Amino acid sequence: MKNEEFYSNGMNYIKKDYPELYKEIVSLNDTVYNGKILNYRTQKLIAIALVSAQNNDIAIKKQIKSGIEEFNMTRDEIMDVLKIVLLISGKPAFTKATSILYSILSE
Amino acid sequence: MKNEEFYSNGMNYIKKDYPELYKEIVSLNDTVYNGKILNYRTQKLIAIALVSAQNNDIAIKKQIKSGIEEFNMTRDEIMDVLKIVLLISGKPAFTKATSILYSILSE
Amino acid sequence: MKNEEFYSNGMNYIKKDYPELYKEIVSLNDTVYNGKILNYRTQKLIAIALVSAQNNDIAIKKQIKSGIEEFNMTRDEIMDVLKIVLLISGKPAFTKATSILYSILSE
Amino acid sequence: MKNEEFYSNGMNYIKKDYPELYKEIVSLNDTVYNGKILNYRTQKLIAIALVSAQNNDIAIKKQIKSGIEEFNMTRDEIMDVLKIVLLISGKPAFTKATSILYSILSE
Amino acid sequence: MKNEEFYSNGMNYIKKDYPELYKEIVSLNDTVYNGKILNYRTQKLIAIALVSAQNNDIAIKKQIKSGIEEFNMTRDEIMDVLKIVLLISGKPAFTKATSILYSILSE
Amino acid sequence: MKNEEFYSNGMNYIKKDYPELYKEIVSLNDTVYNGKILNYRTQKLIAIALVSAQNNDIAIKKQIKSGIEEFNMTRDEIMDVLKIVLLISGKPAFTKATSILYSILSE
Repeated sequence: MKNEEFYSNGMNYIKKDYPELYKEIVSLNDTVYNGKILNYRTQKLIAIALVSAQNNDIAIKKQIKSGIEEFNMTRDEIMDVLKIVLLISGKPAFTKATSILYSILSE
Repeated sequence: MKNEEFYSNGMNYIKKDYPELYKEIVSLNDTVYNGKILNYRTQKLIAIALVSAQNNDIAIKKQIKSGIEEFNMTRDEIMDVLKIVLLISGKPAFTKATSILYSILSE
Repeated sequence: MKNEEFYSNGMNYIKKDYPELYKEIVSLNDTVYNGKILNYRTQKLIAIALVSAQNNDIAIKKQIKSGIEEFNMTRDEIMDVLKIVLLISGKPAFTKATSILYSILSE
Repeated sequence: MKNEEFYSNGMNYIKKDYPELYKEIVSLNDTVYNGKILNYRTQKLIAIALVSAQNNDIAIKKQIKSGIEEFNMTRDEIMDVLKIVLLISGKPAFTKATSILYSILSE
Repeated sequence: MKNEEFYSNGMNYIKKDYPELYKEIVSLNDTVYNGKILNYRTQKLIAIALVSAQNNDIAIKKQIKSGIEEFNMTRDEIMDVLKIVLLISGKPAFTKATSILYSILSE
Repeated sequence: MKNEEFYSNGMNYIKKDYPELYKEIVSLNDTVYNGKILNYRTQKLIAIALVSAQNNDIAIKKQIKSGIEEFNMTRDEIMDVLKIVLLISGKPAFTKATSILYSILSE
């Protein structure tokens, strides 16, 4: 299930045309998200924060969507993440991610 | 205790010379870290991830130090955070934060 | 009038669903834009520069629009800002902000 | 031919309305891409890497397109660039640039 | 006087070893800081904001120092700039630039 | 020899304490730098550009040093890279990387 997020956009192409690179990324992905202490859900919350700070619309959408669908994250939970983004990465990044969160919730 | 982190560097000056601005930042800080769902510890883990991605040495040191001292975060726990930084923000940010983590632990 | 800019996208949702956080942001916003020396107009020019460097399309549009509508900023004035973006943040950020400026002016 | 990339979006406006600034940028552009050791093609590969790391969709599209059309760069060649982006700037930047590359190739 | 800022670090080497590139940068610099509407002082305030957001210690120091020495900028004036950095680029960038400002003032 | 760059700072700790993660990173590193079309040298030039744009002093030093020591890259060759950084990522990033390059050469 963890690899769900790979099967979209760019990663599909990598899988077909660059199987070795794809294998590496899947393998790294599994190692990264296989926390010793933190569970996968907490690590996904961290991932949502990091892509929000990068102003990367598609990645924000993908991470929030996967958080809601795979982990039943609630709006309040994700807002607790985005508040840290506000403080540390600034208001424009916060506003963008908040807008994306609400647009996903209203789908 | 949450405000501990303010009493260092720049924030000291703000407190003395710009008390209104200081009050605003403390107030925002409290609202941000007063999660509805997530606890303060989880939010601090997110803060560690975000400053690591910013390549800001002083902020990384401050956040990791506060995580270890205020929350008894372990090395493994913080490494679970930095692994996400590796995947999403790249190896140089990961390596820098890892070096800072180890230098704090060896103090 | 200063708060005009809040009533769009993400901030609307925050206002309705997270009134305390909203109040904090409005309050910080007012303190920030209440310069001791610089006037609000000059601070808005700085805001335009900062969002242009972040490659955040929506924020660039919002800041430039608000500059033109609230302050009657001219194209030459905003170009004087974007030239600094070119020098300090690079050509792609400059080109993107310039394109957005012209598309707003031609509306 | 090198200046081909200028004749799009923002640069058109600069050319018409700010001829002196335009001349400066063209002149800097020529000096920059006039490598002492590296050829123009290698420098363009570096440019593709840098804009990919900036998460600037339009610039990524423009640089990759110009690489394919002006230099007959192949998919494998550009993927060799994007792999470095993956390692140093993270997976979201890599995935975005890969998606753009494939969408250009399928046009 | 405007070129004062060039004679430090990297730019010295460029001047000696890459005179053509140096000439280009000086020339672009002059065009950029030769505002149609904004004066040089306002443009320097914008430059301080932009480098603060980049977390580049040396550049922050150089820009703030040049602002104080060339333009007699006051602490309050520069703090009016850094407050916008706080709102748009986040607290760590703001705290770093504030610390640098105060360390320069106490020299 | 390619893994030379791993044996420094953070990576040493990872190797000892997180062997599985270390193995993943080495493996990804090898796949990434094993270009289909581009040779390792060209890929290293791209890596120098990317870390220069990140304002990460330690990483810039490490990449440039490895470029000079492992590949006998010359000053002119690396300057051809940094010129692209100037154009796309701005003057402060360019100046910092140039200073680091010269300080390494004068060691």
